[in-house]
Amino acid sequence: MLSFKHLLESFEKEFQIEIQNIQTTAPVNLYEPIAYSLEVGGKRIRPVLLLHAASLFTKYPETFFPAAAAIELFHNFTLLHDDIMDHADIRRGVPAVYVKYGANSAILSGDAMSIMSFRLLSQCEPAKLPSILTLFSITAIEVCEGQQYDMEFEEKDQVTIAEYLEMIRLKTAALIACSLKTGALLAGADDENCRLLYEFGLLIGIAFQLQDDWLDVYGNECTFGKKIGGDICENKKTCLLISAMEMCNERDRSSLLEWMGKSDFDEKEKIEAIRTIYTESGASAATKTLMKHYHDQAIDKLDQLTIADADKTELRKFASQLLSRVK
Amino acid sequence: MLSFKHLLESFEKEFQIEIQNIQTTAPVNLYEPIAYSLEVGGKRIRPVLLLHAASLFTKYPETFFPAAAAIELFHNFTLLHDDIMDHADIRRGVPAVYVKYGANSAILSGDAMSIMSFRLLSQCEPAKLPSILTLFSITAIEVCEGQQYDMEFEEKDQVTIAEYLEMIRLKTAALIACSLKTGALLAGADDENCRLLYEFGLLIGIAFQLQDDWLDVYGNECTFGKKIGGDICENKKTCLLISAMEMCNERDRSSLLEWMGKSDFDEKEKIEAIRTIYTESGASAATKTLMKHYHDQAIDKLDQLTIADADKTELRKFASQLLSRVK
Repeated sequence: MLSFKHLLESFEKEFQIEIQNIQTTAPVNLYEPIAYSLEVGGKRIRPVLLLHAASLFTKYPETFFPAAAAIELFHNFTLLHDDIMDHADIRRGVPAVYVKYGANSAILSGDAMSIMSFRLLSQCEPAKLPSILTLFSITAIEVCEGQQYDMEFEEKDQVTIAEYLEMIRLKTAALIACSLKTGALLAGADDENCRLLYEFGLLIGIAFQLQDDWLDVYGNECTFGKKIGGDICENKKTCLLISAMEMCNERDRSSLLEWMGKSDFDEKEKIEAIRTIYTESGASAATKTLMKHYHDQAIDKLDQLTIADADKTELRKFASQLLSRVK
Repeated sequence: MLSFKHLLESFEKEFQIEIQNIQTTAPVNLYEPIAYSLEVGGKRIRPVLLLHAASLFTKYPETFFPAAAAIELFHNFTLLHDDIMDHADIRRGVPAVYVKYGANSAILSGDAMSIMSFRLLSQCEPAKLPSILTLFSITAIEVCEGQQYDMEFEEKDQVTIAEYLEMIRLKTAALIACSLKTGALLAGADDENCRLLYEFGLLIGIAFQLQDDWLDVYGNECTFGKKIGGDICENKKTCLLISAMEMCNERDRSSLLEWMGKSDFDEKEKIEAIRTIYTESGASAATKTLMKHYHDQAIDKLDQLTIADADKTELRKFASQLLSRVK
């Protein structure tokens, strides 16, 4: 079993070489935006999870770097295209690709990135390729479906918690689950362990997104790394807003609707007012409870893995850090 | 060996069922634009070439329908995204997807289409999958590179014939070549025949695009199915324009540049004036000669195939019809 820290360092080293290669490939105007979007960073959670899952069943997870890079490329492709669709100007503190290079470049470079992830996958051990490609392509489509629901929710008057959870399962959790299962498949794990790692990933991925939504309201701007209250300003139907609408009293519901109907408002004032409703209605606590529920279910899957208990330490730590994370 | 006509009919029948399935999948707003873009039609050249190439080496090419559908899906995905980038409102006589459903839908549905083509490929016989996926993913990236060059040419003052030919090799010919080789690979053809079919496809694909450019100037609106003179109105740097700039006299060069510089003009007048220059400068004849050159080179590859001569009839007919086609 290899630590996240170790795997992150060795993956990042290889990945930087890959980024340099991409940057200098012709046509430069196609590949430079790809390199730009990749070198801006990110936590590299998905490739590290893939390599860590592999390390539970083999001593040499490094041979799976291409697959790990494939998943990181695909994830960044989705961010690149999502930013166009969501008109999100800033990504990780720098201008989004479509802002820096224009929408056409962002569309085409994103397309190439998505395809490049499949080209990287083609380097997998031939015998493993059918199951890897099937899992990856199904997951990739789920991510698109999740983004579709996310966009649709913006136009809908009402979204239920169940609908919201299904959306984040598709948009966020599926790729995390896929990362873990891909690592396990590549390392030759048995079906049951592959299945359990997938389910662990799905549950922890949902908890991860709920925490992300919560931090968007209650986080610290400096440690979280993005503007706090963004979801509130945009009336994004997160678990917090949906819960608050269900749980709050009539006066607060009117207040929520009034704030959401305003097109001209003081951002700080709106964020403060809605945050207070989230807290007082119990929506914040309900979101935390739901997060804990998914975390605990994830740990239950981890417990069922038929590997040495000591080998579960890193994933246990990952799951618990997730609940207390500030960024 | 199976005829194009037979293969087109049987493929289309299966493909229509696939389109119906896509149309009714949730989320409908993601899948409906995909079904719309696929049912509008098209000549289905690529899947038919794939199945025909397979039929040269096996009696049962029908088993390769998923791969044929994959290539048709991928091709239509590129059209869908190209239309956004090129601001092309009409495709095959009906509104482009981004016009009918909006740019965000077109981006996301296109993304899903591209991925769906890889999901279809994952159904290939496991032993064949590594070579199929490698070829397909490399080709798919080439198509993106071709589109990038095509967009860049619009901004460039000068493009050479060599640059233009490389652009259409990537954007158009590579996928035609890939279709033929994929069929051959799936049917278990030997390396040499796979290589020859790929090269035949590349050469005939270039001839195909040159003819397309020529028809855009000299075709008949009714039979060609799209507006004649579109490339001229947009100052598109096709083989005809590049050749004319190289071959025409000073007076005609000034006239060409003057027409290209006008932002306000009578379309018919511009088309007529530039068409006359294309004819009189010899650019039309030069394009036809180049087309014939690629056609003859393609036939040379066909001659080298180690299959019965009678089995080459359909590809020979395809190549020759291409030179005399009006649509």
